[in-house]
Amino acid sequence: MESPSYKNLIKAEDAQKKAGKQLLSSKWYPGFHVTPLTGWMNDPNGLIFFKGEYHLFYQYYPFAPVWGPMHWGHAKSRDLVHWETLPVALAPGDSFDRDGCFSGCAVDDNGVLTLIYTGHIVLSNDSPDAIREVQCMATSTDGIHFQKEGIVLENPPMPQVTHFRDPRVWKENNHWFMVVGYRTDDEKHQGIGHVALYKSGNLKDWVFVKTLLGDNSQFPPGKRAFMWECPDFFSLGNRSVLMFSPQGLKASGYKNRNLFQNGYILGKWQAPQFTPETAFHELDYGHDFYAAQRFETKDGRQILIAWFDMWENQKPSQRDGWAGCMTLPRKLDLIDDKIVMTPVKEMEVLRQSEKIESVVTLSDAEHPFTMDSPLQEIELIFDLEKSNAYQAGLALRCNDKGQETLLYIDRSQNRIILDRNRSGQNVKGIRSCPLPNTSKVRLHIFLDRSSIEIFVGDDQTQGLYSISSRIFPDKDSLKGRLFAIEGYAVFDSFKRWALQDANLATFSNDAC
Amino acid sequence: MESPSYKNLIKAEDAQKKAGKQLLSSKWYPGFHVTPLTGWMNDPNGLIFFKGEYHLFYQYYPFAPVWGPMHWGHAKSRDLVHWETLPVALAPGDSFDRDGCFSGCAVDDNGVLTLIYTGHIVLSNDSPDAIREVQCMATSTDGIHFQKEGIVLENPPMPQVTHFRDPRVWKENNHWFMVVGYRTDDEKHQGIGHVALYKSGNLKDWVFVKTLLGDNSQFPPGKRAFMWECPDFFSLGNRSVLMFSPQGLKASGYKNRNLFQNGYILGKWQAPQFTPETAFHELDYGHDFYAAQRFETKDGRQILIAWFDMWENQKPSQRDGWAGCMTLPRKLDLIDDKIVMTPVKEMEVLRQSEKIESVVTLSDAEHPFTMDSPLQEIELIFDLEKSNAYQAGLALRCNDKGQETLLYIDRSQNRIILDRNRSGQNVKGIRSCPLPNTSKVRLHIFLDRSSIEIFVGDDQTQGLYSISSRIFPDKDSLKGRLFAIEGYAVFDSFKRWALQDANLATFSNDAC
Repeated sequence: MESPSYKNLIKAEDAQKKAGKQLLSSKWYPGFHVTPLTGWMNDPNGLIFFKGEYHLFYQYYPFAPVWGPMHWGHAKSRDLVHWETLPVALAPGDSFDRDGCFSGCAVDDNGVLTLIYTGHIVLSNDSPDAIREVQCMATSTDGIHFQKEGIVLENPPMPQVTHFRDPRVWKENNHWFMVVGYRTDDEKHQGIGHVALYKSGNLKDWVFVKTLLGDNSQFPPGKRAFMWECPDFFSLGNRSVLMFSPQGLKASGYKNRNLFQNGYILGKWQAPQFTPETAFHELDYGHDFYAAQRFETKDGRQILIAWFDMWENQKPSQRDGWAGCMTLPRKLDLIDDKIVMTPVKEMEVLRQSEKIESVVTLSDAEHPFTMDSPLQEIELIFDLEKSNAYQAGLALRCNDKGQETLLYIDRSQNRIILDRNRSGQNVKGIRSCPLPNTSKVRLHIFLDRSSIEIFVGDDQTQGLYSISSRIFPDKDSLKGRLFAIEGYAVFDSFKRWALQDANLATFSNDAC
Repeated sequence: MESPSYKNLIKAEDAQKKAGKQLLSSKWYPGFHVTPLTGWMNDPNGLIFFKGEYHLFYQYYPFAPVWGPMHWGHAKSRDLVHWETLPVALAPGDSFDRDGCFSGCAVDDNGVLTLIYTGHIVLSNDSPDAIREVQCMATSTDGIHFQKEGIVLENPPMPQVTHFRDPRVWKENNHWFMVVGYRTDDEKHQGIGHVALYKSGNLKDWVFVKTLLGDNSQFPPGKRAFMWECPDFFSLGNRSVLMFSPQGLKASGYKNRNLFQNGYILGKWQAPQFTPETAFHELDYGHDFYAAQRFETKDGRQILIAWFDMWENQKPSQRDGWAGCMTLPRKLDLIDDKIVMTPVKEMEVLRQSEKIESVVTLSDAEHPFTMDSPLQEIELIFDLEKSNAYQAGLALRCNDKGQETLLYIDRSQNRIILDRNRSGQNVKGIRSCPLPNTSKVRLHIFLDRSSIEIFVGDDQTQGLYSISSRIFPDKDSLKGRLFAIEGYAVFDSFKRWALQDANLATFSNDAC
């Protein structure tokens, strides 16, 4: 029987097919980040290793480069690097998901690829809270075509709750568990974010267990999180991790500088009790990182991918017909009670050429270089002990008209600064992460056509901090320089690799 | 009798006369800061109000724009704004000041303008410590021509001391007192800075009283000050102020970022005992501020002028034959146990035209303007309470090639930042001062052709912090903009005045 949303799916797939490869000519289209073939992308969904392949779904609106009724786009990969776009997996339009197939997860239910997602229904356009959100299921045996199974969890924890979304399901001791975000309201209709815990024996009948955690911070209404989106709950090292995306945290100092955040609380899990043992930490220090989702590889690595954009940030690529992409897949580890993230080792297959400069010492000076491709991996080892420059680091994607993206160590702030105020297209702002207390700082950088991801390491640990931001430089802004301002800087080594365009390579091999 | 230095004085005066007005064509020559007619200037010396006029002497080498055997240059003014250059006051070359007439002070000794300065003699070029420094006197009745009186204080506090300089003399209860800087050495020949106190009944016979204060900080050798230069000791409000210029303080965080510092310690004075009651505070937060000297006006104001440059900072004006200038005269007040500095009110006579813009509100936007002269006074009131932009402020002296000097409020650092990394001529570096905890921030700015001075006020107090830095923009970099990055900014008022060129006006009226 044909569901009411079937024709929406066909329309979406037509739009995607019609777009074809034309976006490859967009000057900001990524070469090695998952990006929609056309239109809009936000949250990653349904990350899973299934029957020998990695699957990545995503919030998708293929008809225009703006948010619209959410579909699930779909891509798969054998290596986490080359991603093949698949037919659109879900389209909205059924009674239970009329206005959107919102975020969710995927599980392997005895060989059936099972998606659990939020069906979103707008009850009135008068209020953003006049909505109904229910948890739905869709299944597939071939991993490509999905059959909607309708609602599996209808009732929120309390009847008055309307914001109730982003289910994440896992199996533990032969039971299915689900965490899902919801919002309660205080007497002033100020929201409070929570994560609910549900349990099921069959993925279809869910029982509310308890509220796993909620924003009980002492902040007054308006300063605490009004909603916790995209929860995930998993083990890492000897800890349990509650990861989520709080909305409404107030900026303070270097913290919470983006519109919405994405981070985690560590604690102890003794089902069904989660005892938080740390404060909330943001996962990434850049401008564009939200709604991260995690999955486990066959070899037991925990891998995370986030939406590499942010609500309300300017999106100049909309002029070219697309908006949004995914971050690099990052391996998660727990070191000294902090989650550290490193790009997956698979990325190394893209390295095409290597330029190595050994010790570069600068004293109030610059060391210019030229990049032969906008797709670059850079590894820079900075000798913190031997350097005393007030500011020292790199300028990237520079031209002769003052365009530049700066990444540098600042000794007065004791932080590593990313400054995109002159990166191009009026997409501005600075972000920073702490400067590790170490003798050598390792900056591991990935530059794509419209992004920079920086992984900061110290003597012992890689990926202590990451800074992920979108930048929109001119196509020919390919100059760079190392620099030291007010003092000297010792760079122990400076390696650069031009990277292969994985998206182009995949398109060329695809029939799509 | 003609002293051996007399022909040096004639040569110096010839060099100055020969230079005439030619420097007025230098694109960076200040319009309203005291600047040498030719050659090199450093410390202000002998500041005094004498017979109805303000006198300012200065460390001077008129033969080249580099440091050389020090003379005393001389200028006078009736209004602290227009300064007439006078004949060179002192030249080195006598037995007691063979290699330099180093810094010192002036007192009015019953109508005789009396200079007390350091005679500097190099004993060997093998070591910077192989010197002899003695305190000398010169007198004048007309305030223009000086008669050297030779040594008045020969012996340092301890026989092994060789660095012994920068006498500052005042009268108190019918006694003359002198503070003078000196350096002792520890067993590793690491210097320790001190200020000695001397006493005299006649300005000529001085008796060592005690060491007023020394660097007894617990820092290890190499991190404490190895010398305290240019001491001054005076009353302000209900406190006594020991002002001096320590050398060798290590940079830490935002502090001590210049090669050498200039600041003060507040305390209690019960002659001959000074009891320090505060830590050392730097006077100014900019790149270029050293060796400040203070004097009292007829109407009882304490006025301070500093050397508006810094050892080892680049001096692009050397290519035009000059280097160094003085800061604006600043009125000192003691507010809440801090010295605050405001430009003297006399500066207002230079205002030529006024442009007033009332409330400017920006949201992730810019508000451009053009300056019709590089000589500008700007007053900007920033509504801190109503603004939430991550960075908001002004770009000044901009051109279309990326040249700009940035002054902005940074909410993550909670500081006001001056960024001259793109100001021109490779003269770089950032400096910052605390952001006052206030509802409105007042930024009072003076732009000269090669400098910016910023006075920061809060709701109650003007001049809480000052940031003084030299900049070397292109002549035609006359654009500016208000800006707000990542959020909105409310500027309550934005006033600009083009300022008259006081130096040009004075030159035109002079016979020099």
